[in-house]
Amino acid sequence: MKVTIGLLGCGTVGAGVVELTRRRAGRIADMTGVRPVIKHILVRDEQKPRGVVLEGERLTTRPEDVLDDPEVRVVIETIGGIEPARTFILRALRAGKHVVTANKDLIALHGEEIFDAAEAAQAEVFFEAAVGGAIPLIRPLKGCLTSNEITDLKGIINGTTNYILSKMTETGAGFDEVLREAQELGYAESDPTSDVDGLDAARKLTILASIAFHTRVRLDEVRVHGIRSITAADVAYANDLGCVIKLLAVGRERDGALQLEVRPTLVPKAHPLASVSDAFNALFVRGDAAGDLMFFGRGAGSMPTASAVVGDLIEVMQHLRMGITETRGSNRLPKKQVHANQGPAGRYYIRLTALDRPGVFAKIAGVFGQAGVSMESVLQKRVKGEDAQIVIVTHAVSQGELAAAIQGLKDLGSVPSIDNVLPVEELEGEGPVLEDVMDDVVRTHPELS
Amino acid sequence: MKVTIGLLGCGTVGAGVVELTRRRAGRIADMTGVRPVIKHILVRDEQKPRGVVLEGERLTTRPEDVLDDPEVRVVIETIGGIEPARTFILRALRAGKHVVTANKDLIALHGEEIFDAAEAAQAEVFFEAAVGGAIPLIRPLKGCLTSNEITDLKGIINGTTNYILSKMTETGAGFDEVLREAQELGYAESDPTSDVDGLDAARKLTILASIAFHTRVRLDEVRVHGIRSITAADVAYANDLGCVIKLLAVGRERDGALQLEVRPTLVPKAHPLASVSDAFNALFVRGDAAGDLMFFGRGAGSMPTASAVVGDLIEVMQHLRMGITETRGSNRLPKKQVHANQGPAGRYYIRLTALDRPGVFAKIAGVFGQAGVSMESVLQKRVKGEDAQIVIVTHAVSQGELAAAIQGLKDLGSVPSIDNVLPVEELEGEGPVLEDVMDDVVRTHPELS
Repeated sequence: MKVTIGLLGCGTVGAGVVELTRRRAGRIADMTGVRPVIKHILVRDEQKPRGVVLEGERLTTRPEDVLDDPEVRVVIETIGGIEPARTFILRALRAGKHVVTANKDLIALHGEEIFDAAEAAQAEVFFEAAVGGAIPLIRPLKGCLTSNEITDLKGIINGTTNYILSKMTETGAGFDEVLREAQELGYAESDPTSDVDGLDAARKLTILASIAFHTRVRLDEVRVHGIRSITAADVAYANDLGCVIKLLAVGRERDGALQLEVRPTLVPKAHPLASVSDAFNALFVRGDAAGDLMFFGRGAGSMPTASAVVGDLIEVMQHLRMGITETRGSNRLPKKQVHANQGPAGRYYIRLTALDRPGVFAKIAGVFGQAGVSMESVLQKRVKGEDAQIVIVTHAVSQGELAAAIQGLKDLGSVPSIDNVLPVEELEGEGPVLEDVMDDVVRTHPELS
Repeated sequence: MKVTIGLLGCGTVGAGVVELTRRRAGRIADMTGVRPVIKHILVRDEQKPRGVVLEGERLTTRPEDVLDDPEVRVVIETIGGIEPARTFILRALRAGKHVVTANKDLIALHGEEIFDAAEAAQAEVFFEAAVGGAIPLIRPLKGCLTSNEITDLKGIINGTTNYILSKMTETGAGFDEVLREAQELGYAESDPTSDVDGLDAARKLTILASIAFHTRVRLDEVRVHGIRSITAADVAYANDLGCVIKLLAVGRERDGALQLEVRPTLVPKAHPLASVSDAFNALFVRGDAAGDLMFFGRGAGSMPTASAVVGDLIEVMQHLRMGITETRGSNRLPKKQVHANQGPAGRYYIRLTALDRPGVFAKIAGVFGQAGVSMESVLQKRVKGEDAQIVIVTHAVSQGELAAAIQGLKDLGSVPSIDNVLPVEELEGEGPVLEDVMDDVVRTHPELS
């Protein structure tokens, strides 16, 4: 038996999917009893050279060749972006075809519409490749880890910004210079907004948080800070403080309300996320039973992304063979409250420019004292003209206390600018949040007691 | 609708399963449409105090109360060890009950018998908790990652030895002292053989390698070295060399043949596995499409283990609701060749005792040169009596070259003892092994090209 597949798009990811599906067809047939056959590939230009040599697959520029072919049971979408991908996927679902997609933008922005269409048609939508490339994230969160209340997500989920920050850390160069190099090397787009302003990470966080917290998160509920404000000085100060700067996507649930944020953060070098560099992605998950988990791997690339897409395809084919026509979860998830400005207490890094005069530092210290913010460390390294650069790391403070201290500095007159304020990550805590019912040691041979 | 469950054993893990199942019953019902109800719990002594307050669950000492009750659809086994767990599980499967187990010993040693019984009865066996505690490993290897040829597994999968090695590294104390402390604290058994001699890690490697390499690995095919030979001196020398010592379980497939080994190894501090300390476990996986992946989390403990068991239970219940009666994969896997002594070329750490006389080092260097082994670094730090302790790290050598050098040293007369020989791990390579069909950058908006 074979399953006929229609592929939408044959760019970087699509070509990888063609190659990998062909390479694994035998194994998939052994495992599922059905052989995957890509019949049509929708492209914009049939003449354009492809990264893969086509064998039986037919190129077409007419969407209906794929979407209206009743033989096609599964549609794989690798076009990316919202339109025409959205329209094509909805048409495929309404025709009862199952869909595998790598499209984070679409799932983040139109997930509800797509899942509703799938449920109505008793079809399935898989999107493991949409977040974290090759790393299994969506399926563990929807599967193994549903035994947990997940309280925290924390991830490096955008490769371009991680590459830029890694290079700034390695070379000491500034943001603009590294961005330009990344663009020349093809690691950043000519319009880098989506990546460097944190929007891509925010879309992925929207997807992860919706699954982990069993709700539907909207993109506009994520507080987003990009990395344009990070200077070579910040990177150097962070290094002096034993940290590296990473763009973290953070989701938390506390007392039924969510906090969602993408923000450059100082991460201590001993923290497992600190060693995730260049194009690698990683996600920390804390569950109340599992404790801390981390998933790490390649977040992008033709083959790593195809790895996740073809993994989903295998699952779809297993379901087809077993005759599963029912989607697993309900699409009607409760909406949870999102607190935009109430993150937990934490340490902060504050870089400011102060007039280099006697008594100014005492005034600054006074402002912090009045706001109830105590200082953990102070650096004062580079002086330009009459000004001094001061870096302060606070002890854990609430966002209210932090805001009061910042306002006090602004009112002071002797602080011409507050140049950057970044959170400082703690080293991960250690363990399950639920109290272990017995002790924390699994005996090699627990006895029948 | 409810699903009735029988639980075998109510020790550390079993009590966690009772607690977590009760806590998550509502969510499981929402997700699967069925509510899990633990009806019977088989124990050896009904009077013994439990780590969990029982509500509706009935304690029994008679196995037939659980195994012969037709209402019981799922049996969860948390007894551990081979018997009576094996007999109970086989009886449950033959009665058509699905089985969830945390029993690594049983799956490693009697997996084939159990999977055959399951296939014959059209029942399912889940064992996510058997390796890596809370970390999703079995399901990603059986699911998402089946799109890959997996070439390498490398893991820290025994908590007791990782705790002992972590403490030796932190405190500088010797093996015996740290083992004694670990036993007092309950982190090591009074008979620590299974852990410290590497057998527990070997059993888990047997399970992981069978799944990852699509074959059936036997425990006796794993070359096992424990950590008893690791001294405080080795730990200190490793530190001087920028490494920590970890007990790694390694599986590789090269040209259709496997190499399987559990062995203490020097791991560079910048390697992600180096920061996996105490009770944490981690597994590196390299797939030909996905590239390098790492999974990290708590390898033991009542709640982390229950997290995996209840995750499996949820899967079983979803299958029951959807009416899946078919197991997914075939149990008839091809046997692959295992090469016991043909690991790839690599660097080695050699600690030896030499007579502290002029010319001895030149002789040692001569032996290495003759064997074709070049030296990367040499340490000579501690001298006792008339002897010198010498530590040599080689460049990458084959096992044949290494063996020739060791034999040469033994024949030399001026090397009274070769105290330890340990492999040195390389920093992980960077990427997918299959050539990416286009380039290695995923555009944020890949165009329909």
